[in-house]
Amino acid sequence: MAHIDLGVDEKEFPGVRGPMKYRPVTGKPMMELAETLLRGPLSLSTADRELIAAYVSGRNECTYCCSAHSALAAALLDEGMPLVDQVRADLDNAPVSAKLRALLHIAGAVQVSGREVTPELVATARAEGATDEELHDTVLIAAAFCMVNRYVDGLGTFAPSDPNYYEETARRVVSVGYRNTVST
Amino acid sequence: MAHIDLGVDEKEFPGVRGPMKYRPVTGKPMMELAETLLRGPLSLSTADRELIAAYVSGRNECTYCCSAHSALAAALLDEGMPLVDQVRADLDNAPVSAKLRALLHIAGAVQVSGREVTPELVATARAEGATDEELHDTVLIAAAFCMVNRYVDGLGTFAPSDPNYYEETARRVVSVGYRNTVST
Repeated sequence: MAHIDLGVDEKEFPGVRGPMKYRPVTGKPMMELAETLLRGPLSLSTADRELIAAYVSGRNECTYCCSAHSALAAALLDEGMPLVDQVRADLDNAPVSAKLRALLHIAGAVQVSGREVTPELVATARAEGATDEELHDTVLIAAAFCMVNRYVDGLGTFAPSDPNYYEETARRVVSVGYRNTVST
Repeated sequence: MAHIDLGVDEKEFPGVRGPMKYRPVTGKPMMELAETLLRGPLSLSTADRELIAAYVSGRNECTYCCSAHSALAAALLDEGMPLVDQVRADLDNAPVSAKLRALLHIAGAVQVSGREVTPELVATARAEGATDEELHDTVLIAAAFCMVNRYVDGLGTFAPSDPNYYEETARRVVSVGYRNTVST
């Protein structure tokens, strides 16, 4: 049970969905940010952005967010969940592009602290073709999940253990977006 | 110099102001969230909310955010900067209410990980009079600064060393809000 009374059935509104419904005045800008960062017209593919979200959430040990965004990344990637699992377990040997690997290393640094992002990590990503906008978006996606993971776990929200929940939710997000999935 | 070209004079737009101007599509919802969390009509006083922001930013060693929100808290508190310094240096002996101390302990837990927020920390805050909404808002303010601190430092932005910069900015935020200060 969550640390506070969210006023919803936690099974129906697990993870971030409960707190966002509980406090719409903060839920609204958070939803705007998520929709823009993960689904907006940015240069990185939506699959890559979801992979960054899953990677950071896994490192923060946030079961709900990691399961949700792993399912999203898997739904968007041709290689599906096996690639998501490989990236999370052994990034250096996972079959992703050198650019994405370098960006995921930056996301991993951000997960520890913004101060861990070194000029060397940035130079490596740039040498593999990352643009300023992609560097910006990677840092902000990683930082944003350091917020959401803490929001979800800091309030002790419920995380379903059934993978079907996350797969079904992922299908819905791919089809109609976060806004129309999380708040309904 | 920041890790990416933010397209602004960093002395004029230091800290979070550069990246927010660089990427307005994400800057806008972030500004909405900050304005709501720190200045909106919530139950915790704006001084207490700024103190939570300063406390978390200090623990994340984010010079810009810690300086900015310490100056804001100082501007809003009768006791000024000495109290902010005491809270940051020695929370258990700082002269704040037992409720605020308990909420700051929760914020400190969130800074480490959402999973560090225990039922005991929540029960202590509740016993001192914290409401569900105040617990929610404390967790989200702390979580949001774990995002902003990482955004600011992960992009290697400039932090002025002159305290006057932060004091003047604080006066402006108190008078006209974040939206009209940060983006101009």
